[in-house]
Amino acid sequence: MSDSTSSADSTDPERVVEEYENQLEDVLADVEETTPRTDDDLSLELAGLQLDRRDFLKAGAVAGAMTGLAGCAGSLPTGGDGSNAANTGSDDVPEHRVPPGEHDEYYGFWSGGHSGEIRVLGIPSMRELTRIPVFNTEGARGYGYDDQTDEMLEEAGDYTWGDNHHPNLSETDGKYDGEYLYVNDKANGRIARVNLKYFETDAITDVPNVQAVHGTCVLSPDTKYILGNGEFRTPLPNDGRDLDNPENYTSLLSAVDPESMETKWQVKVDGNLDIIDSGKEGRWAISSAYNSEEAVEIEGMSHDDRDYVKAFDIPAIEQAVERGKYEEVNGVPIVDGTQSSTLNKGDRPIVRYVPTPKSPHCVEVEPNGDYAMIAGKLSPTVTILDIDKLGEVSDPADAVVGRPKVGLGPLHTTFDGNGHAYTSLFIDSQAVKWDIEKAVEAEEGSTDPVIEKIDVHYNPGHIQAVKAMTTDPDGEWLISLNKLSKDRFLPVGPIHPDNDQLIHIGQGEKEMELVADHPAYPEPHDCVFADAETISPATTWDKEDYAGEKPFVTEKDSGVERTGEQSVHVKSSVKRSEYGMSEFTVKEGDEVTLTVTNIEDVRDVIHGVAIPEHDVNLAIAPQDTREVTFTADEPGVYWIYCTYFCSALHLEMRSRMLVEPRE
Amino acid sequence: MSDSTSSADSTDPERVVEEYENQLEDVLADVEETTPRTDDDLSLELAGLQLDRRDFLKAGAVAGAMTGLAGCAGSLPTGGDGSNAANTGSDDVPEHRVPPGEHDEYYGFWSGGHSGEIRVLGIPSMRELTRIPVFNTEGARGYGYDDQTDEMLEEAGDYTWGDNHHPNLSETDGKYDGEYLYVNDKANGRIARVNLKYFETDAITDVPNVQAVHGTCVLSPDTKYILGNGEFRTPLPNDGRDLDNPENYTSLLSAVDPESMETKWQVKVDGNLDIIDSGKEGRWAISSAYNSEEAVEIEGMSHDDRDYVKAFDIPAIEQAVERGKYEEVNGVPIVDGTQSSTLNKGDRPIVRYVPTPKSPHCVEVEPNGDYAMIAGKLSPTVTILDIDKLGEVSDPADAVVGRPKVGLGPLHTTFDGNGHAYTSLFIDSQAVKWDIEKAVEAEEGSTDPVIEKIDVHYNPGHIQAVKAMTTDPDGEWLISLNKLSKDRFLPVGPIHPDNDQLIHIGQGEKEMELVADHPAYPEPHDCVFADAETISPATTWDKEDYAGEKPFVTEKDSGVERTGEQSVHVKSSVKRSEYGMSEFTVKEGDEVTLTVTNIEDVRDVIHGVAIPEHDVNLAIAPQDTREVTFTADEPGVYWIYCTYFCSALHLEMRSRMLVEPRE
Repeated sequence: MSDSTSSADSTDPERVVEEYENQLEDVLADVEETTPRTDDDLSLELAGLQLDRRDFLKAGAVAGAMTGLAGCAGSLPTGGDGSNAANTGSDDVPEHRVPPGEHDEYYGFWSGGHSGEIRVLGIPSMRELTRIPVFNTEGARGYGYDDQTDEMLEEAGDYTWGDNHHPNLSETDGKYDGEYLYVNDKANGRIARVNLKYFETDAITDVPNVQAVHGTCVLSPDTKYILGNGEFRTPLPNDGRDLDNPENYTSLLSAVDPESMETKWQVKVDGNLDIIDSGKEGRWAISSAYNSEEAVEIEGMSHDDRDYVKAFDIPAIEQAVERGKYEEVNGVPIVDGTQSSTLNKGDRPIVRYVPTPKSPHCVEVEPNGDYAMIAGKLSPTVTILDIDKLGEVSDPADAVVGRPKVGLGPLHTTFDGNGHAYTSLFIDSQAVKWDIEKAVEAEEGSTDPVIEKIDVHYNPGHIQAVKAMTTDPDGEWLISLNKLSKDRFLPVGPIHPDNDQLIHIGQGEKEMELVADHPAYPEPHDCVFADAETISPATTWDKEDYAGEKPFVTEKDSGVERTGEQSVHVKSSVKRSEYGMSEFTVKEGDEVTLTVTNIEDVRDVIHGVAIPEHDVNLAIAPQDTREVTFTADEPGVYWIYCTYFCSALHLEMRSRMLVEPRE
Repeated sequence: MSDSTSSADSTDPERVVEEYENQLEDVLADVEETTPRTDDDLSLELAGLQLDRRDFLKAGAVAGAMTGLAGCAGSLPTGGDGSNAANTGSDDVPEHRVPPGEHDEYYGFWSGGHSGEIRVLGIPSMRELTRIPVFNTEGARGYGYDDQTDEMLEEAGDYTWGDNHHPNLSETDGKYDGEYLYVNDKANGRIARVNLKYFETDAITDVPNVQAVHGTCVLSPDTKYILGNGEFRTPLPNDGRDLDNPENYTSLLSAVDPESMETKWQVKVDGNLDIIDSGKEGRWAISSAYNSEEAVEIEGMSHDDRDYVKAFDIPAIEQAVERGKYEEVNGVPIVDGTQSSTLNKGDRPIVRYVPTPKSPHCVEVEPNGDYAMIAGKLSPTVTILDIDKLGEVSDPADAVVGRPKVGLGPLHTTFDGNGHAYTSLFIDSQAVKWDIEKAVEAEEGSTDPVIEKIDVHYNPGHIQAVKAMTTDPDGEWLISLNKLSKDRFLPVGPIHPDNDQLIHIGQGEKEMELVADHPAYPEPHDCVFADAETISPATTWDKEDYAGEKPFVTEKDSGVERTGEQSVHVKSSVKRSEYGMSEFTVKEGDEVTLTVTNIEDVRDVIHGVAIPEHDVNLAIAPQDTREVTFTADEPGVYWIYCTYFCSALHLEMRSRMLVEPRE
């Protein structure tokens, strides 16, 4: 949080406090000195944030900065042990441990950022129950190693990583149905689907015409589409045309069919698109945006005082597509949703542009479906949008019904279902609790709706109360996904973990209480929760699910068949201590297809197939079949072994591949 | 644990108990019926273990089986909530939570099995602080994406995964020095080194002539070598010769230099090699083994009643190498340590073959360095080897000074530093605590040294008390690394997590108490612990560490240079909100080398470099420089963005690569 070129030790708490105080004095001095001027170029760099002084003045941000900085300084450790007396909780810290053998109450699905995976946590214990590789390849599950997942990744662009941000659970009738989870890849503009029967990725779509699918949501209440925001404006199509003509760049909203995973249509907008959420009734999808300027450099992108949130009228867009009012690019119908489009001129515009303070970051629709909350990022406010009004007012600005001032760097908002909202403050490193109805009634910029603030450590992005995105939040626990952990854990080198903090909110009736710090491997962005009983995973495979697509190899079926001059098909069963055949012989240069079925039906008895020096690695759960194709390119003896310690004779459990030299 | 072809629901606790009882009755009936016969082929499949009845009878295993089965049944949940009243602890369960902002007491380094990574946990909280990719590629840290790590992985065989089992910390004067961690890759016969200043893998050696480097240890007290056991017997060299002449296969012990990471010498043995540990004085390294039969099928491998632990006399081996008594294969001197070798005929054999009951699994040397414990696996005993006697006795069997009977399926042993050993029982699903000196004094096969057993859930492999592998164990906490978790956590599909259970042993004075279940992504094998103050990681990069190897790119240095007809070098600094250049232009088909320095010096402010559709992904910690080379193969606009959310203007932080079409 200090200047990047500072030579002082910026990790020393006292030093940091001192720097803050100095910065604060500078800000106050500047403000005092320059108040009469309204258009000078004085700017403040604070935690990497370059704010024009006007933003501060307009929004009364000096007071905000004072509160924020004081709060931040107060949250710094005062002792050498890194503890913070104010936040370590009282004697009645709510119990979040789950005793041995007992189960957690909720599933939490965490995006893994550029690790490319989804993580499944138990709540409230915060234990990581498993990982689901999505855009990455992963050895423990053999994901990307068997032919099926390898081909899926190859067909989706053949990238080896992705950057997932926003996990979304499928809904039926407005409730999580436990069937699928959808998540974006910002890096390569993709959307993936995870099958929650098997906790396995089963489809990835490379969305045409967009770069950086960022915000993602399912269209409530019945998952009609997966909606994805194209964040980066590019030429359309991006084939070398208009390279340096940014005025011809564009951003698109994409609608992907949840079953076929095909991109059904796209909508072109002015500016760009950031985060998206769906109303509860299936009509409105609302996107934040930060580059109404349509600039290509940071100064330009944050130049104007106003940006526009885009509210997409989905049935109106569908109607335009049906009527053929689109151009087709790379096979996808693209509807013109820019402000000047004729589709926005009639009685029912397909996209409504709602003015907000500059560069708002997020959109979250509260449990009742009445309001969408748009956190200000570069404004210390949250803009409250009345969703019903979107279709009623002639000026979209009239759909704004409140704008409480909450603190510096508001990024995301979550809900307890009892009328309270909780907003993460990136710069203040706080979570702020506020009263929704009070905020609607209060004057714009009022801090009166604010109930309480709690320090978090440090720089929170998403904030999620358990089941806040449903119509029935739990209201007991809240997670602050903090981007920085700095000194909160034993040091582990220059790549620090994030810090997901568990905060007790007690149905919103109590004071917030910080209960646990939880280190998170970089870099979770968001999470979503479901009641334990909502998800019903299989504990072994149901072979009916792949009947016709893959064989089920029994012990009797095990054997080698030559399928060509340079190709063989090896089939093998596997069970504890034993592969279906103890050896097989192939010739140097053969392409080997190896099909293996785990014939056991006992839960948790998984078997692996590893072949040294051939990069072969399968993980096969009970009743599952996996297949891999590789080349036996060097003569020699290669022992096939099981990577899952499955029995007391696990080490002796092997098969031998003999690769004969070709004459 | 039920028959693999059973159609009953094997996950129903009551059903499992019933099955166990049926199996037990069968065993007892068989034993009664056949006691007079001593060499029949009746075998028992129990948890995948095929034991000849003779093993049971000889070792009095019927009683063991009864204890074991009863223990196992007793450990099953009796209620629907999966809880186990006997094990959930008393009111004074020791506190293992670490309050927010406080630090753990110990680092725990976990092998990640076929995930290919090392995991770093805080103890006692069991929180995962970070992961260190080793044999895998990994997006969050950009490991395998920058040229340096990509080339390291390529030169080490170009495999995309590995199977790491045994993490070892470097020692100076018999104490952990906090400098390096070494770990094996069983899949491809490799050994890797992790630099603990940066928590990053900095070297990988593909060990010649061996398949499946399994057991691994450093030679105490000064890390003279990293020793690795070649587990799978293969032809030497494995080039197509002797394909189906197993009598010519061999296993090798390899000694790798900890600095150069070169393989210095190897030792050929009879049978194979499994786990290894070093004595405390630098002379002896002791390996378990399970295939004295030199068979290639499971029945043959577990046919004989005896196997041989191999004790390697390191100075004697070094002397043989110095005297030129070796053959060289693939550049490595190989010393003949087989029983018939002349090097084993003189006064000072280089390898001593110590007979033990069949197929022993592990070797762990206790803190005083007096004894090596060899758990029986297929024998219900632990063999105690007096290390000093190895150099004194003429018959190596005389170095065995105790053989307590501990239970079914003993795999590994750990220590509290107060005279107690704790052995994991794979089949019994228990940890057994026993008295070392009592075991030395007791008659062979006595259960008298056994103090206490505790159920674990389920099927433990390694067991580690904190710092048990040092001369000064902590003695407070013990971890049981259980291979199966079955019903212990919310279900997450057919690939179950392991269950690392935290057990309080209270200096060995109290009863063992199960404190926490901890789900572990497949499949940790082992772990090692260090006091927090032993490890001193850097929190930002020290650029002196790469001076001369990589440039440090300042804002001023940022720019594009054409280096050839089809190649360019792009240099850029990066700091919060800003790359050193906001755009650069290349031509279609150019090979682009991109060198980026994070010029900040603030802890935890990491920056990423992601280029959509080019699979480019760097993670750059403060003061670090990373380089990547890729081809710009399609014309278009590609936005470069930061994958670490680093400031409030993080989303606006971008650079643009314009790829011009080539005429």
